[in-house]
Amino acid sequence: MSDELKSSRRAFLKGGAAATAGIAAAGAAGAAEGPDPLITELQDWASLTGDGVDATPYGLPIEFESDVIRRNVEWLTADTISSINFTPIHALDGTITPQGCAFERHHSGAIELAKEDYRLMINGLVDTPLVFTYADLERFPRENHVYFCECAANTGMEWAGAQLNGAQFTHGMIHNMEYTGVPLRTLLAEAGLPAETAGKWVYVEGADASSNGRSIPMEKALDDVLVAFKANGEALRKEHGYPVRLVVPGWEGNMWVKWLRRVEVMDGPVESREETSKYTDTLEDGTSRKWTWAMDAKSVVTSPSPQAPITHGPGPLVITGLAWSGNGAITRVDVSTDGGMNWTQARLAQPGQKMALSRFYLEIDWDGSEMLLQSRAMDDTGYVQPTKEQLREVRGLNSIYHNNCIQTWWVRETGEAENVEVS
Amino acid sequence: MSDELKSSRRAFLKGGAAATAGIAAAGAAGAAEGPDPLITELQDWASLTGDGVDATPYGLPIEFESDVIRRNVEWLTADTISSINFTPIHALDGTITPQGCAFERHHSGAIELAKEDYRLMINGLVDTPLVFTYADLERFPRENHVYFCECAANTGMEWAGAQLNGAQFTHGMIHNMEYTGVPLRTLLAEAGLPAETAGKWVYVEGADASSNGRSIPMEKALDDVLVAFKANGEALRKEHGYPVRLVVPGWEGNMWVKWLRRVEVMDGPVESREETSKYTDTLEDGTSRKWTWAMDAKSVVTSPSPQAPITHGPGPLVITGLAWSGNGAITRVDVSTDGGMNWTQARLAQPGQKMALSRFYLEIDWDGSEMLLQSRAMDDTGYVQPTKEQLREVRGLNSIYHNNCIQTWWVRETGEAENVEVS
Repeated sequence: MSDELKSSRRAFLKGGAAATAGIAAAGAAGAAEGPDPLITELQDWASLTGDGVDATPYGLPIEFESDVIRRNVEWLTADTISSINFTPIHALDGTITPQGCAFERHHSGAIELAKEDYRLMINGLVDTPLVFTYADLERFPRENHVYFCECAANTGMEWAGAQLNGAQFTHGMIHNMEYTGVPLRTLLAEAGLPAETAGKWVYVEGADASSNGRSIPMEKALDDVLVAFKANGEALRKEHGYPVRLVVPGWEGNMWVKWLRRVEVMDGPVESREETSKYTDTLEDGTSRKWTWAMDAKSVVTSPSPQAPITHGPGPLVITGLAWSGNGAITRVDVSTDGGMNWTQARLAQPGQKMALSRFYLEIDWDGSEMLLQSRAMDDTGYVQPTKEQLREVRGLNSIYHNNCIQTWWVRETGEAENVEVS
Repeated sequence: MSDELKSSRRAFLKGGAAATAGIAAAGAAGAAEGPDPLITELQDWASLTGDGVDATPYGLPIEFESDVIRRNVEWLTADTISSINFTPIHALDGTITPQGCAFERHHSGAIELAKEDYRLMINGLVDTPLVFTYADLERFPRENHVYFCECAANTGMEWAGAQLNGAQFTHGMIHNMEYTGVPLRTLLAEAGLPAETAGKWVYVEGADASSNGRSIPMEKALDDVLVAFKANGEALRKEHGYPVRLVVPGWEGNMWVKWLRRVEVMDGPVESREETSKYTDTLEDGTSRKWTWAMDAKSVVTSPSPQAPITHGPGPLVITGLAWSGNGAITRVDVSTDGGMNWTQARLAQPGQKMALSRFYLEIDWDGSEMLLQSRAMDDTGYVQPTKEQLREVRGLNSIYHNNCIQTWWVRETGEAENVEVS
């Protein structure tokens, strides 16, 4: 592409396409100049035949996309039996995350549990303790919803400064899928709840060795929690909790218990490992925030970013990213190219949906100079995504979880980008 | 499950779950009876550990789901180089189709075309013929939309009566994905259109040997057609047209040209093979309907269905299926269990979206007797899906394509289902 900045996109790209790829010699001018090599190339394509596909009944990504995969960060966990994989958000677009590259965290590996062997117990303060088979679950009314699932530790390394170089690693502990399942309230009603549910909790646990037990207040359990068996239309992948996982819309991913085996109705929370020594935020005064379930509004520019540098010169540039809020729908995303001094409202690809990813775009005419790229999300509660400085003022420097601060990418004149911190 | 019909679902399933799986002995009653084998089983699960997942960075379906794959019908085409694969819609739920099991049709195999080698030419009646590289396309403003893609031949074998035994084969030439791409109108504007576009057409073709050329009226080309490079967030699979395909919302799948290489602006249609000898409907009088692009409103019950029989006795049963319209949004789906004599309005999982699949559910209390299961879609134009009889009255018996008639499954007392025709 031309390095000259043109103010009109149309004029520019016309020039740009010509400079890069040559204007097609489709008319008389081309004929006068002899065959354009690109025309020849296009004609050559007409002889391309491929394979019959039937050999791969479950289609896989083409080999050229073999780097668009989940990746882990080896030093984050001691063993692969307790590990995490990050979604390649820098390479994706739209909002749906394919299951095959959707982040997942496991504490005792990904267990293999056949539908025939699956059981879900509901016990505790219920009229009749029940055990459901998978086939039983299929007989209750189902719902479909697209929700994001974000690990509370997403962006956690960034509390200490700019640590990891790539949106996949700083913000990739998130995915967004269409879930099909039975509302938990339906199954609780089946077992029979106490007349007074206020102040009651459910304790949920999985069938893996970690059990990953979590306490959920009854109000949420009766609201929008799903006992889900499909994601993006098909069965859950093993690592996503096949055959059944809990979906806790807007709340931290650790509560979305996989291989769900038991829901106990209780008088209070269990205060389990996963909700005391983990997933709490230690403040400056040594006390800890806990029961911080909802993931606050957050956003990140996915391209350009360290793993998705600008590969062309100045001129039209699409800046894009993701925004989400565990408290509602995204209403607005602003983008700054100068580290937060000036903001421009980005375009949402679709109206924000509650507890689901929103895709935003900002098309700019890049002048080729360096940028400090940021995005700032707002949700329908009026909440505005804070800067890291604002967050640290409230939370101090001891936190690991619940970092929803504004992220900065330093985009250089070369188009390469780097994770930096601005004050 | 109990074979007795209970009028209250709650009462029934409580009894049902107890009968099948045993009520969990979580309380004093259980203790008195000794350990329930299911409790023991649940406890055994606590020792389950799995693998570390990292070995499969692009996650695949679990082995237990190995039959949820695209399938072809060998006798439909002469060679796998020109073949078709059907979506396993009987086994899916929700609305999104994962790319890995999304139907695809190819006429010259699935070709392998790297992004670096990709070129898109826009030529013909334009101010400046242009050739875009893949990187060029990424510099234009993008849109995201969920759209269904249905082959015009979907359900085509059913014109002759009940032929294929399974929703996958009768209705599986359809998928529904979130597409990201650049509006075709943007690229046409870049090349510069004639002042008067009324009556103009574009001719679109792919880079495979078949080229699969199709004519599209300019009005549609300037409306909602996308030059798409992502589906469900990630790159197109090879067999879905990697790296770039055309998305022609609501219109027959054959026009969604894969490996898109050229768009020519013309004074009229080409009347190519794919729009004359193919994809037209021969009527009783020997003349043919042509330019029948939009796929009329249609629906099908996906479960129960021949590949998804009822596996339990009488009582609560979830009837579910898909509905769509190429002319707008689905507003209502009715379900009949008696071959169309009586109809009950089904529940749409979400409000219908334009040119996208809708999921419907009807929960019934099945009395265990045989059913003639049908569904009937309505869209926001007021159109009502016709019976096969009504369709034949208009189209005769010579058609292959554009069969959107009401489908019937005969569900027997055993729960098994069969494709049948009712008059």
